[in-house]
Amino acid sequence: MKVGFVGLGGMGSAIARGLLEGRGHELAVYNRSRGPAEALRAAGAEVAGTVAAACGAGVVLTMLADDAAEEAVVFGEGGMLGALPPGGVHVSLSTIGTAMARRLAEAHTGAGQQYVAAPVFGRPDAAAARRLVVVAAGPAAAVERVRPLLEAIGRKLYVVGQDPAAAIAVKLCGNFLIVSVLEGLGEAFALLRRSGVLPEQFLEIVGGDLFQSPIYQNYGRMIAEQRYEPAGFKLRLGLKDVRLALAAADERDVPMPFASVLADSLRAAVANGMGDLDWSALGKAAAQRSGL
Amino acid sequence: MKVGFVGLGGMGSAIARGLLEGRGHELAVYNRSRGPAEALRAAGAEVAGTVAAACGAGVVLTMLADDAAEEAVVFGEGGMLGALPPGGVHVSLSTIGTAMARRLAEAHTGAGQQYVAAPVFGRPDAAAARRLVVVAAGPAAAVERVRPLLEAIGRKLYVVGQDPAAAIAVKLCGNFLIVSVLEGLGEAFALLRRSGVLPEQFLEIVGGDLFQSPIYQNYGRMIAEQRYEPAGFKLRLGLKDVRLALAAADERDVPMPFASVLADSLRAAVANGMGDLDWSALGKAAAQRSGL
Amino acid sequence: MKVGFVGLGGMGSAIARGLLEGRGHELAVYNRSRGPAEALRAAGAEVAGTVAAACGAGVVLTMLADDAAEEAVVFGEGGMLGALPPGGVHVSLSTIGTAMARRLAEAHTGAGQQYVAAPVFGRPDAAAARRLVVVAAGPAAAVERVRPLLEAIGRKLYVVGQDPAAAIAVKLCGNFLIVSVLEGLGEAFALLRRSGVLPEQFLEIVGGDLFQSPIYQNYGRMIAEQRYEPAGFKLRLGLKDVRLALAAADERDVPMPFASVLADSLRAAVANGMGDLDWSALGKAAAQRSGL
Amino acid sequence: MKVGFVGLGGMGSAIARGLLEGRGHELAVYNRSRGPAEALRAAGAEVAGTVAAACGAGVVLTMLADDAAEEAVVFGEGGMLGALPPGGVHVSLSTIGTAMARRLAEAHTGAGQQYVAAPVFGRPDAAAARRLVVVAAGPAAAVERVRPLLEAIGRKLYVVGQDPAAAIAVKLCGNFLIVSVLEGLGEAFALLRRSGVLPEQFLEIVGGDLFQSPIYQNYGRMIAEQRYEPAGFKLRLGLKDVRLALAAADERDVPMPFASVLADSLRAAVANGMGDLDWSALGKAAAQRSGL
Repeated sequence: MKVGFVGLGGMGSAIARGLLEGRGHELAVYNRSRGPAEALRAAGAEVAGTVAAACGAGVVLTMLADDAAEEAVVFGEGGMLGALPPGGVHVSLSTIGTAMARRLAEAHTGAGQQYVAAPVFGRPDAAAARRLVVVAAGPAAAVERVRPLLEAIGRKLYVVGQDPAAAIAVKLCGNFLIVSVLEGLGEAFALLRRSGVLPEQFLEIVGGDLFQSPIYQNYGRMIAEQRYEPAGFKLRLGLKDVRLALAAADERDVPMPFASVLADSLRAAVANGMGDLDWSALGKAAAQRSGL
Repeated sequence: MKVGFVGLGGMGSAIARGLLEGRGHELAVYNRSRGPAEALRAAGAEVAGTVAAACGAGVVLTMLADDAAEEAVVFGEGGMLGALPPGGVHVSLSTIGTAMARRLAEAHTGAGQQYVAAPVFGRPDAAAARRLVVVAAGPAAAVERVRPLLEAIGRKLYVVGQDPAAAIAVKLCGNFLIVSVLEGLGEAFALLRRSGVLPEQFLEIVGGDLFQSPIYQNYGRMIAEQRYEPAGFKLRLGLKDVRLALAAADERDVPMPFASVLADSLRAAVANGMGDLDWSALGKAAAQRSGL
Repeated sequence: MKVGFVGLGGMGSAIARGLLEGRGHELAVYNRSRGPAEALRAAGAEVAGTVAAACGAGVVLTMLADDAAEEAVVFGEGGMLGALPPGGVHVSLSTIGTAMARRLAEAHTGAGQQYVAAPVFGRPDAAAARRLVVVAAGPAAAVERVRPLLEAIGRKLYVVGQDPAAAIAVKLCGNFLIVSVLEGLGEAFALLRRSGVLPEQFLEIVGGDLFQSPIYQNYGRMIAEQRYEPAGFKLRLGLKDVRLALAAADERDVPMPFASVLADSLRAAVANGMGDLDWSALGKAAAQRSGL
Repeated sequence: MKVGFVGLGGMGSAIARGLLEGRGHELAVYNRSRGPAEALRAAGAEVAGTVAAACGAGVVLTMLADDAAEEAVVFGEGGMLGALPPGGVHVSLSTIGTAMARRLAEAHTGAGQQYVAAPVFGRPDAAAARRLVVVAAGPAAAVERVRPLLEAIGRKLYVVGQDPAAAIAVKLCGNFLIVSVLEGLGEAFALLRRSGVLPEQFLEIVGGDLFQSPIYQNYGRMIAEQRYEPAGFKLRLGLKDVRLALAAADERDVPMPFASVLADSLRAAVANGMGDLDWSALGKAAAQRSGL
């Protein structure tokens, strides 16, 4: 399929490369700074000079940092809203807010286009290996049209309905659960260290026997070893996602006391210089809070 | 080995039966109400008429509901402190508080006896199948002496040092992490239901693909299906364990904001009639809070 | 002084009437629905048919419900940005967000106009009696120009600098402290009722002797008497203000665990049908949570 | 009246001195370390060498640090339970737990004695000036018998029923509300400092105009000036009282999310070396959390 691709950060570049290599898709790639686009030329990408130029094929994927970036690319001057042909599909892989997802859906519909939200679970290395988990929602016909793309970038595709905000909610809740594990482990390790138990020992019992989950094992090891660099996923991005989860909860009058605690813990961590560490540095924050 | 066994509730009975069947251990069992003791006679147990009678063999296991029950059995009239011979070992499988563990250790030591804390992870069905995970701590010699027993009741034995309170801390932190999952899932499901996503769908993604953990899958299914009876582990017992975790944290000046939220959520659930439901009914509490 | 006045809800009408009566100010009043504007004609107001018509005098006050209303009036078609003459001053009495305040300041400056934030403490009856407390911030010259107006509507005027967002922050923090009292009293009363103490008795001790504060006495009485209607200030507006306080905190990476608890308590109250009660109904929410 | 007085810390000494001076009461005073007792001899006190010696007059007041101290004095060897004559009255001014209050009531009743809980609001300087607020509960006849004493030590006496635990609950809830103010102010000041508003300015508006309360004004000034020494009331004692409030709430299944936040904030403050500062150092903790 011939598609545009906008947003070539770590994740975007890895996904784009995955689509190019061995999948037969043709990509016109655009990035605000030209470097990452040029880097994909060798892999077969056509470099688009503008957002509009990436929209020509009628299907365009975005992988952008946040609401503001998505807003600029879609609503800004020379943006997708004007450039995408009627009937065109915008597939956003970005983790944005549910309110923004609804706004995008409305605007694209108003412009005779279609919007599919398809946020992904996984880090750049998973993206490069086409092992992401993709959660998509949007008009049924549009989802079907882009299904080959979504199946190409991940090992698993879930379609959760026609309301794009629903796919976003799933992604935000997934990340909320992961960061809850980080806080929980952080608190437990603080108490255990204060009680003379080695975190490694606890980890073996709990990660292995009790939860039998790679998430507990991998993050548990990072916290036990106090190894928060290099960041696989920066703590300040974790705060961004918790903020979006709370905003979604606020729209629906859903109290989320755990998410509230997480927002405060993450804010304190950022305020004390941990924003660029891995988000598992919540464990470091919990330790400091306990005087460790 | 010839041992006494005090406390034949659901867990205690299952463990005692496991020790009797096919392991060659001889048990003198005692329970406050005689019924459960008699029920084990057929499996080969000798029924002890008093706590003291169960202490004769010099090694006695307890599996009791809480601090108060343990206190009565050990410090009460005719209790273990006077009845256990010098050099005798008291192995407590109960989930009690760290302060009580230290008090027991001190008192037994003062009486020329030894105390081993060996709380277990698992429910009665796991106990019956000798599939518990056992976490033990106490004087090294005492632990070695009772090791065959501890290995007999579980599929895995972890020894975490010589301070009994450390084993308790591990157990309390493990339960804290599990109940954190319940609250997290409860909050996430409330938001998702309000957002038009089916909990079952989210569960498939998160329990299966993201966490790959039976704890997420099993409890997630209970919350998704709103099936909180019969209780595998009663919510009011979950509150008891969170209370003990917070007490341990309080002794060490460790802030545990997640545990604090859990205590309040559990208290509200008990106050609103959910105390005898399964502790996964935290999901029901989260739903009600959200007006669902 | 000749001024425009936009937004004639309960507060706006009372303030406008206060300015008209006995202060010699001339007002051109505008409201989306015409009724409240006509009602002021007898008091001497000129009725403006559009926002633009209210902007003619070069100084215009707004008292609007939220960010969205303020955005519509300023940035919308026929809005203040185009209608206010160069050098004109927009004084917003509304409780909006700090981000919106910054956005307004920037836009007005860009249009050669000036923006003063002047949120007020007090309810309609205080407004009618010109007893509000006004907290203002904006360019010094603009504040001086509108000082007679601000002094006319309140019993006290505080100028807290040149950054409009600072005045907003003061207002949001003040409301945060008041709603913290409501939650605190709600929790205390729940415990006391469960402990057999009459709330009235506690109130006499704490409101009178300990705090000696009308806020504790008045709200305490409402909660003790479980009298949440008619609403002096609706609970859903309290949620709005806490949400704005948290948004301000989030911009600055300031953890505010009390504000987070308040947001969750208020969301739960709204989700359970208490949104239109007085915000002191946090006391009702606390009681229900405790099974009372 | 002739009475015994046990416990001569800062508060106890000041109260005892108040009773001696100009009120015509005769005191037999006891303290674990003899110094403070001797210091009262000049004021007319008789120095008792033991707890028992202080019990002779049949009415004895205690002002002790915590549950453990009260337990030792009453239940310990040579303690009040054996030494107080039948019909004697123990008036405890101490801030202890509700469970301990019930235990004392039961034990004294069992020994043919009576127990009155009479915790006080106020600091040593208020005690010296006989300006405390006293909250009493106990058997009606016993309260009447000691009323002259309670009226002598305070400016106001409230009797809240016959259940001693009720008086304790009132005291704990009062302190809970005060420490809630400290946390609230701490959070607000952190946000305001980050927003460029001077705490002093906010304080003038909020302490003076909004709350009109000496508690907001006095503590607000301490936090604004970051002046946490010397401690009027040590932060670790504030933690003790919040802990007791949460224990009382736990007995009644009352969720108290604010109290939970306070316990965690106070624990973090103690863990980070602030335990001996004034409890208003919650403001310091809030500032540090925000990177200030």
